[in-house]
Amino acid sequence: MGLTSRDSIFEQAKEWVYEAGENIRSNMYNQLTIETKSNANDLVTELDKKIEKFFAEKIRGLYSNHRIIGEEGYGDDVHSLEGTIWIIDPIDGTMNFVHQKRNFAISVGIYHDGIGQIGIIYDVMDDVLYTAVKGEGAYKNNQKLPQLNKDVVLEKSIIAMNSYIGFNDQRINTDKIKELIAVSRGTRSYGSAALEFAFVAEGIIDAYVSLSLAPWDIAAGMILVEEVGGITTTAQGDKVNLLEKSPILTCNQEIFTTLTKDYIEIK
Amino acid sequence: MGLTSRDSIFEQAKEWVYEAGENIRSNMYNQLTIETKSNANDLVTELDKKIEKFFAEKIRGLYSNHRIIGEEGYGDDVHSLEGTIWIIDPIDGTMNFVHQKRNFAISVGIYHDGIGQIGIIYDVMDDVLYTAVKGEGAYKNNQKLPQLNKDVVLEKSIIAMNSYIGFNDQRINTDKIKELIAVSRGTRSYGSAALEFAFVAEGIIDAYVSLSLAPWDIAAGMILVEEVGGITTTAQGDKVNLLEKSPILTCNQEIFTTLTKDYIEIK
Repeated sequence: MGLTSRDSIFEQAKEWVYEAGENIRSNMYNQLTIETKSNANDLVTELDKKIEKFFAEKIRGLYSNHRIIGEEGYGDDVHSLEGTIWIIDPIDGTMNFVHQKRNFAISVGIYHDGIGQIGIIYDVMDDVLYTAVKGEGAYKNNQKLPQLNKDVVLEKSIIAMNSYIGFNDQRINTDKIKELIAVSRGTRSYGSAALEFAFVAEGIIDAYVSLSLAPWDIAAGMILVEEVGGITTTAQGDKVNLLEKSPILTCNQEIFTTLTKDYIEIK
Repeated sequence: MGLTSRDSIFEQAKEWVYEAGENIRSNMYNQLTIETKSNANDLVTELDKKIEKFFAEKIRGLYSNHRIIGEEGYGDDVHSLEGTIWIIDPIDGTMNFVHQKRNFAISVGIYHDGIGQIGIIYDVMDDVLYTAVKGEGAYKNNQKLPQLNKDVVLEKSIIAMNSYIGFNDQRINTDKIKELIAVSRGTRSYGSAALEFAFVAEGIIDAYVSLSLAPWDIAAGMILVEEVGGITTTAQGDKVNLLEKSPILTCNQEIFTTLTKDYIEIK
């Protein structure tokens, strides 16, 4: 991906994201057909599908050699990260979308040969656009985000996590999570992985940990976090494989080692 | 408190809340002196104190017979709920205020002979004003909030709670909290009790439970929640005493009995 084509893809992607956001806002009060996917907590709406289809058609129309990884089934069957790949979550935080009508985001990450090039997270109802282009920094509504604070220590950190993480003793050492909750300044849970990544990039939380995130939950956020000097790995501290679900940690570099070494132990 | 004087007090209180909010917004990027109160997680800022002092002086100047309960020390030594009492949290969600520069609120509840008459919660950075006057409904930015959904069941409920609640096994039956987390649709944690009450009133979360809340955390929120048909009690389901800290539950009436009977067991 050359720099000129990257710039033009970035501009195009932003335009589509804004168009999708407008589409969501003008349709969201229509009756939603909520299907149940694998379990009752995994809500899918018609709009979710409609928005992913919108992206898939736009991308295939303009970039016929790009591939798509999406949550809702309009993507390609992708088994390698070669070439240019759009990794899309049309509505990240579906539960918030359904129950709250806010606190959800469109997430678009564009990778070339496995390297994150463009990340876009759009908080649709607050009309806040987080963007990042590799090597060019991260932005919130066109305002450049500063590099993450180097003075952060765990005792002064706010950690985002789901409440059930502390009880999932088949998959994580809950005693250590208990210690983490006690030693950190506080925890939060917002219900949208993409926004939680954006908040780490913004420095308003210092880490976000989740036991199972899909590529579309994290693809854009990883690029944002990297551009402000943060780090994203599996919760064990290993390199993320964007072709599969993993337990994920994204955080300020300053607390990465202590988090992975002393507090997060995946079984 | 007569209805005419209540209306005039309500208008006056809103005016002061907006003035305080403007004061916070224009001062918050100044260097904050952060003191440590009882523990490192209990942050106090100069601005917290300044805003409470602002309210205390305004109230004493105009309503010399009203009394004040406040977090920061400018209130009165109140041992009964007789007469008219303003219960004030100048900045609810101090940790959010310090770390995030958003997601905090001014909370003002006005009680007469122990009955909540006026509740105001102001999300300062989003400029969202939640208000309620007893018997006249609750509002979000002058738009009337509907009565809470009668069709809510626990399996479709979002519950706000702090992550440490599930570990505080000296004060609560954590096995039952574990079941609650599993059976409910999801949990959230926003870090401002006043906003969490407002979100219950708005119906975007269905319950909020906390192991220790002070009168100023809940005084305004209780009135909002009541005006949309919700309920606030101690976490055991008993009447709240506004002169002391308590474990607190506020929720949609439809899930109140199952929450207090089956899931929340305070030791």
